[in-house]
Amino acid sequence: MKKTILSLFAFSVATISFTASAQFAKPEDAIKYRKAAFTVMATHFGRLGAMAQGKAPFEVKSAIDNAEIVAEMVKLPWAAFAEGTDAGDTKAKPEIWKQSAKFKEAAEKLQVEATKLSAAAKTGKEDVFKTAFSATAGACKSCHDDFKAK
Amino acid sequence: MKKTILSLFAFSVATISFTASAQFAKPEDAIKYRKAAFTVMATHFGRLGAMAQGKAPFEVKSAIDNAEIVAEMVKLPWAAFAEGTDAGDTKAKPEIWKQSAKFKEAAEKLQVEATKLSAAAKTGKEDVFKTAFSATAGACKSCHDDFKAK
Repeated sequence: MKKTILSLFAFSVATISFTASAQFAKPEDAIKYRKAAFTVMATHFGRLGAMAQGKAPFEVKSAIDNAEIVAEMVKLPWAAFAEGTDAGDTKAKPEIWKQSAKFKEAAEKLQVEATKLSAAAKTGKEDVFKTAFSATAGACKSCHDDFKAK
Repeated sequence: MKKTILSLFAFSVATISFTASAQFAKPEDAIKYRKAAFTVMATHFGRLGAMAQGKAPFEVKSAIDNAEIVAEMVKLPWAAFAEGTDAGDTKAKPEIWKQSAKFKEAAEKLQVEATKLSAAAKTGKEDVFKTAFSATAGACKSCHDDFKAK
């Protein structure tokens, strides 16, 4: 029994490592990549935030364009949180790997909200957009609170 | 005559500055953003390159997925080459702003090639994919030669 579990564990670790090494040559490449994806995402999300908070006029085309980019970018960073990428120039908390199911859930929640935000922008209705923006911002914050160091 | 040209020039400069400041609060934000967009693009382009050069097996799904991300990312960096973003932590050459029509053309060429590459990946044919990859890599290199410092 013990042997089986150990074998499964070894297999699982090997699979993760293989995936990580196949995707990124070095841990710092993965860290640089995921930070870059978040930077692009945050730039466009910030423009949506300015409209949602009334700091910029609500413009439907801009809302749609920026929300579509956010909805695409939001798919990218997660594969780069591979095992062994917890150290270095990163604010990623160890909880990402210790509570990986919870982290995955938070990442999926954000993706769902970002997709809804994109759909909300397409309605052209400012109040619908604002509500969806708040929900998406809440998903960002919740994940940052648990998994990102200050 | 002189006055008209000067007025036009002033108007044009004002428009560019307005756009830049509306999109990015500070020049360093624009620089960070465009570098991030290139980092994400280069990561996925590198995976395509590994397949095109036979360093990784050609897998149609992976080729399609990565090429689609490249085709999306390739739209993003250009707006961040706003006036006043030529100094700081950047390898952007002054030619970007001195020869802006040529730079725009090079950026558009890359976007065309990246779209073709995405279509080529979808054919599932390795040779078609390799040809399109070379053309896209050529568009990258040509623009880097002219507009990116070593």
